[in-house]
Amino acid sequence: MSLQEDLNTIPGVAAREAATHGFVFNHTMLRVKDIAKSLDFYTRVLGFTLVRRRDFAEAKFSLYFLVLVDDPSQIPAEEPARGEWLLSQRGVLELTHNHGTESDADFRYHDGNAEPRGFGHICVSVPDVEAACARFEQLGVAFQKRLTDGRMKDIAFIKDPDGYWVEILQPTARV
Amino acid sequence: MSLQEDLNTIPGVAAREAATHGFVFNHTMLRVKDIAKSLDFYTRVLGFTLVRRRDFAEAKFSLYFLVLVDDPSQIPAEEPARGEWLLSQRGVLELTHNHGTESDADFRYHDGNAEPRGFGHICVSVPDVEAACARFEQLGVAFQKRLTDGRMKDIAFIKDPDGYWVEILQPTARV
Repeated sequence: MSLQEDLNTIPGVAAREAATHGFVFNHTMLRVKDIAKSLDFYTRVLGFTLVRRRDFAEAKFSLYFLVLVDDPSQIPAEEPARGEWLLSQRGVLELTHNHGTESDADFRYHDGNAEPRGFGHICVSVPDVEAACARFEQLGVAFQKRLTDGRMKDIAFIKDPDGYWVEILQPTARV
Repeated sequence: MSLQEDLNTIPGVAAREAATHGFVFNHTMLRVKDIAKSLDFYTRVLGFTLVRRRDFAEAKFSLYFLVLVDDPSQIPAEEPARGEWLLSQRGVLELTHNHGTESDADFRYHDGNAEPRGFGHICVSVPDVEAACARFEQLGVAFQKRLTDGRMKDIAFIKDPDGYWVEILQPTARV
């Protein structure tokens, strides 16, 4: 039995239905307190490109859509092609900013890893996890788990400005 | 000024550093109570393929990695190529199952959309949002927001077995 056939015997796993053809796991949305800090983290530290902002002035929130691609020139420059491209991609990050939270010293979002738990983390894979983590240290990024912490020496977790965990790993590592 | 140049003036947005070359937004991790129910939902209803399971018997949890691709034959059949492929992809979904939670009637995870808020949702884009939602209705999927609810008539939110919100939209819609 192949590895895939073996996985397909796990209770709950179903064969793909034709009706799901063309479905794309497009994005993950996180609420952030201070959008300037989050944009700095995701663009400067992790290399994301901001592709779209949508402002809802009346409801007092804005949405920011980011992608992590090596060649941003592939992103269509103009709407509507730009939006269609964005919503057809895998691995988009949507950040929701409720206006004013950045000015409230006591305000904070819940990272999902303390009670009540649920969402755990996002993950960015990197070509060289040692080099990436050394750079994060130089940049003063907060770590939840360094490579040297715990049993799993080939993964790290850094924290974004809201405390959301971002796993860092190398595809060729044994994880 | 181009749309991209305009976005690049938003406070916090930084130019991409060469050190982030090759970084990939690989996955999003959610904890799930009953893995069989979740695997059924993500494979049968949404079309994901289970690519890897990792069991941690001593720590009593298992990890499940799924991708949503039209052609699963592109997934390398054997390790280590399979794992390297998986961790190099965008848009992987990782489900964490802590063993035994499925047998605890009172156990539930937090979806992030009630207090304390944080994580909001994941999103699956589909070629035809009307057809997709009609199929979800036929399948008895729970809705958080139907297309006809609220102001935004071109997006829906369904709920996975843990109550996590899954946005459904069509890339060509005005969202």
